Amino acid sequence: MDTTEGFPWTSGRLIELPPDECRRLLAAHAVGRVAWNGPLSPTVVPVNFVVVEDEIWFRTTAHSSLARELDDLAVTFQVDDVDEFTRSGWSVLVRGTAHVVYDATRLPHTWPDLETWPSGAHALHVVVEPREVTGRRLLPS
Amino acid sequence: MDTTEGFPWTSGRLIELPPDECRRLLAAHAVGRVAWNGPLSPTVVPVNFVVVEDEIWFRTTAHSSLARELDDLAVTFQVDDVDEFTRSGWSVLVRGTAHVVYDATRLPHTWPDLETWPSGAHALHVVVEPREVTGRRLLPS
Repeated sequence: MDTTEGFPWTSGRLIELPPDECRRLLAAHAVGRVAWNGPLSPTVVPVNFVVVEDEIWFRTTAHSSLARELDDLAVTFQVDDVDEFTRSGWSVLVRGTAHVVYDATRLPHTWPDLETWPSGAHALHVVVEPREVTGRRLLPS
Repeated sequence: MDTTEGFPWTSGRLIELPPDECRRLLAAHAVGRVAWNGPLSPTVVPVNFVVVEDEIWFRTTAHSSLARELDDLAVTFQVDDVDEFTRSGWSVLVRGTAHVVYDATRLPHTWPDLETWPSGAHALHVVVEPREVTGRRLLPS
């Protein structure tokens, strides 16, 4: 039953999110997941990230699988937030190309605070240039 | 500096999780992400799930991309939990093969409560038979 009175009309409904709302949700979060095609199935790794001018930036160590495998590769970046109490949430998917940035002079001029929680030297920066941004929200029941 | 006195030794350290701990973490959660290779990069979709005898079960609608694309496909199932305050968390990755189950008599005898938050008929069940389970924990700083 769809009605605009009260919440029942929204119960458990999935809606598509406009790109602007996807970008707003991305920018408000500190942890996302980078995923890339594997020989059989994808690898999915959580990372700390920031958004600068619609590009997604994160850091990694020189010996990581991210540094070895991601340069110039098509990747998916995913962020979601789920509330188990209200059974609602959202998920945003960014498809784009990742580049490992070895030269720190290539970092954006407006470089924000990008803290990486795991200890150790995360000398390499990775940027994902987005090609497509989509998202869905599950409305609370 | 590694020392067993106090917390500094754990600061931001990533440790591998044993398979038993990965399975315990999986079983304690209600939402995970199924990911599969795409033409360029993976698709990553959050789903409600349950674990029955080490297999991962979730439901979907007959017209979803999951129903169309996942049958007999190699997939990755990912679950994580992150605490932004303590800057800690964990991530578990299950690689396996997905099968769409059209015949309800094929469901496990010990079928648990599998609630799917989005409204509508989620008539199809999908099971992921795990081939490999790995996980990492980021200790609090």
